[in-house]
Amino acid sequence: MLNDRSRILVDSIKRLLRRGAISHLRKIVNKAHAADLSVVFRFLSLSEQHKLFEMITEPEQKGILLSGLDEDILLDLIERIELDDIVEILEHMPNDDVADLLGRLSEEQSNTILERMKKEDSEDVEDLLRYEDDTAGGIMVTDFIALREDTTAREAIESLQKEYVDVEMPFYLYAVDEYGRLVGVSSLRQLVVVKPDTPLNDFMTTDVFFVQTNMDQEEVAKIVARYDILAVPVVDETHQLVGIITVDDVIDIFRQEATEDILKMAGVGEEFVETKSILKSTRIRLPWLFASCIGGIVAFFIIGHFEDSLSKLAYLAAFIPVIMGMGGNIGTQSSTIVVRGLATGRLHISDIWQVVSKELAIGLILGLVYGSLIGFVAQFQYSMGMLAVSVGLAVLSSMSIAALVGSLVPMAFARINIDPAVATGPFVTTAIDIISVFFYFTIATTFLGI
Amino acid sequence: MLNDRSRILVDSIKRLLRRGAISHLRKIVNKAHAADLSVVFRFLSLSEQHKLFEMITEPEQKGILLSGLDEDILLDLIERIELDDIVEILEHMPNDDVADLLGRLSEEQSNTILERMKKEDSEDVEDLLRYEDDTAGGIMVTDFIALREDTTAREAIESLQKEYVDVEMPFYLYAVDEYGRLVGVSSLRQLVVVKPDTPLNDFMTTDVFFVQTNMDQEEVAKIVARYDILAVPVVDETHQLVGIITVDDVIDIFRQEATEDILKMAGVGEEFVETKSILKSTRIRLPWLFASCIGGIVAFFIIGHFEDSLSKLAYLAAFIPVIMGMGGNIGTQSSTIVVRGLATGRLHISDIWQVVSKELAIGLILGLVYGSLIGFVAQFQYSMGMLAVSVGLAVLSSMSIAALVGSLVPMAFARINIDPAVATGPFVTTAIDIISVFFYFTIATTFLGI
Repeated sequence: MLNDRSRILVDSIKRLLRRGAISHLRKIVNKAHAADLSVVFRFLSLSEQHKLFEMITEPEQKGILLSGLDEDILLDLIERIELDDIVEILEHMPNDDVADLLGRLSEEQSNTILERMKKEDSEDVEDLLRYEDDTAGGIMVTDFIALREDTTAREAIESLQKEYVDVEMPFYLYAVDEYGRLVGVSSLRQLVVVKPDTPLNDFMTTDVFFVQTNMDQEEVAKIVARYDILAVPVVDETHQLVGIITVDDVIDIFRQEATEDILKMAGVGEEFVETKSILKSTRIRLPWLFASCIGGIVAFFIIGHFEDSLSKLAYLAAFIPVIMGMGGNIGTQSSTIVVRGLATGRLHISDIWQVVSKELAIGLILGLVYGSLIGFVAQFQYSMGMLAVSVGLAVLSSMSIAALVGSLVPMAFARINIDPAVATGPFVTTAIDIISVFFYFTIATTFLGI
Repeated sequence: MLNDRSRILVDSIKRLLRRGAISHLRKIVNKAHAADLSVVFRFLSLSEQHKLFEMITEPEQKGILLSGLDEDILLDLIERIELDDIVEILEHMPNDDVADLLGRLSEEQSNTILERMKKEDSEDVEDLLRYEDDTAGGIMVTDFIALREDTTAREAIESLQKEYVDVEMPFYLYAVDEYGRLVGVSSLRQLVVVKPDTPLNDFMTTDVFFVQTNMDQEEVAKIVARYDILAVPVVDETHQLVGIITVDDVIDIFRQEATEDILKMAGVGEEFVETKSILKSTRIRLPWLFASCIGGIVAFFIIGHFEDSLSKLAYLAAFIPVIMGMGGNIGTQSSTIVVRGLATGRLHISDIWQVVSKELAIGLILGLVYGSLIGFVAQFQYSMGMLAVSVGLAVLSSMSIAALVGSLVPMAFARINIDPAVATGPFVTTAIDIISVFFYFTIATTFLGI
């Protein structure tokens, strides 16, 4: 089965490397799909990677492999490859992938490579490098089929056979006017079903979905997904067609954005760290825990402030975990719903008050339910009416404040254009911890008169 | 700009509904993309939805709209539509979408509809309904282009003009043998560039990526994404071509699976609840908080057990939040990395010991760093060497156990085929809370001799 394909590949390549079975390895490496090889490379040492890489004969395959590598593997491996080889590989890659790859190298490396590339190619790539990484311009390909609107179907097919042989996704043909401005689109399928001498503007669709170069890549991805299209054309300020974004890149955007959001929410940076070394992972995760540490120390001082009350009623401490836990969990629920809702377009930042008040209502209801339940446990254990009421009220206030903070903070962040996912993880949880502890002790000391 | 398109649409439709501007509404509704309308429907009352729905003239558009609706909106709306209208709409929809839609209705509703549909269509749909929802069979379309391998390019193009006019994504032509078994694939582009009388088997690719009907949809999606293909053919046990899965469905799968994982990790079920009513959301979120509640009550009894020590040293309580918080946060980091790593294929269940021991090492290092820091704060505040050491050790053990549990539990769950995302949220956090509190008090009472 295909899903275990790369697993089997890793095992057999490792076995052959140990045995030094070069000719066998060469056969496997050239038969395997380069996308599978880029997964295999995660499990090999640098020198093994380099050995395998040199065995690949097709520069196209080398290009696909390089594009699929993790950043740290790529940076190490590229150091070992001859400059001429790199240039040859890049010349066989679609230029958005070239721009993407060069963007991941140091400025010095990328300049050296650009200088060596053919003038025409390197200009295209430099154009692409001008755009921000995460915008339509930064991810588009400049290989697309653009024909004048009066081209006939027959001429269009001929140009597919000659001029546009290398275009990656030749499923849409874009029609442009004399200034290169986008005026319509036809699918390859329409082209083969119409009479050969029909001009494009007789059968093209003029209501074209398009995006502008500066649109955020996530917005672009949402458009492609919503309207089930295979590619979306990109235009500049003057409505000139400058590139297209294809559906395979859209898939990558969604997966990358989902991973980023998930990792940010958990406070682990935004890049996948598990394949990095222990020390690198530790360094990335360390600062995120600092928020939680500071929060814990603040909570420590708050509780320290109530030390006298605690000496009198030691069992007050026993309720700290349940109050913090309930607040923390409902806060995570609220903030996750908001972050994912904003990411998928289910929620919109202008709905802020509607969403926050709804979350607050849910927090109050759930706080009532669990506050009563935990208050009842307190009563059962200690038979002190006022203690039970204090604990119940503390759970209620902790949960409703958590739902409020958990929804308000990411909404507010999104509104001032800060990534809401960052607001979620450690920061919201820590804030909720502090508030919960403070309210609990304030309520308890007031009600119990200590 | 397109990204605010649906927002503007909602506002103008609401305004026109208030004004009762029927003819204007009819124009807008029929000009808007049905995918946009399905978003608009979230913001309208049921009777408004029904009114707008009836204004749409094209059954295709009605179908796209219905497919895009949230389940609860769909179920309410479909009750109001005449059976004959429903049948007409379904006959204009691709049959995977029909199967999907019927799968969301009650058995009774879906049987009534199937009985009314044309025999041929309903048989196709019933075939699709036999497959599990989340498998290749459950999401494939049965509209595809299959030609005998000796068909010439010219004949293939003619069949596109006659036989296969309705095929949704006509970009690949599959070649089958006399038994209908998949033997090759050609792209529409190859078809137009070869000489008209070349037979398919002269230019088709015989190394075709394919999946079997019972493959999990997430695996299918990964294959389409990894190899950058626009559709993957689905075969049954006898290698007969029975359907294809197109890239637009793959995008939906990735988004849906990411949302599910994120929501499960936060303990909010697996469906997006924010657009549901307050009571519905509360009901869905309530049980997930129960784990945390039970955990808190367990922690409560553990601390209660140490009540005597607490009366002697009240400030022991002050460190509970920081110890729980640090453990909780690093546990979330570990489990999130594992869950996302498994989902994206970066980690494999067979790496379990490697991953867990790495996480444990990271937990120990980070535990040392933060244990020392928090121990230092304890020393600074209370000047009691043994207390500082106990607190430091408690942080160290809490963080390393949290990293261990946080990585081991989802890995182990994945191994026994339970969704690892479920293991993450409230359950892992709660377990870590309990363990942390228990270790802390055991260490502190031992070291401080109380």
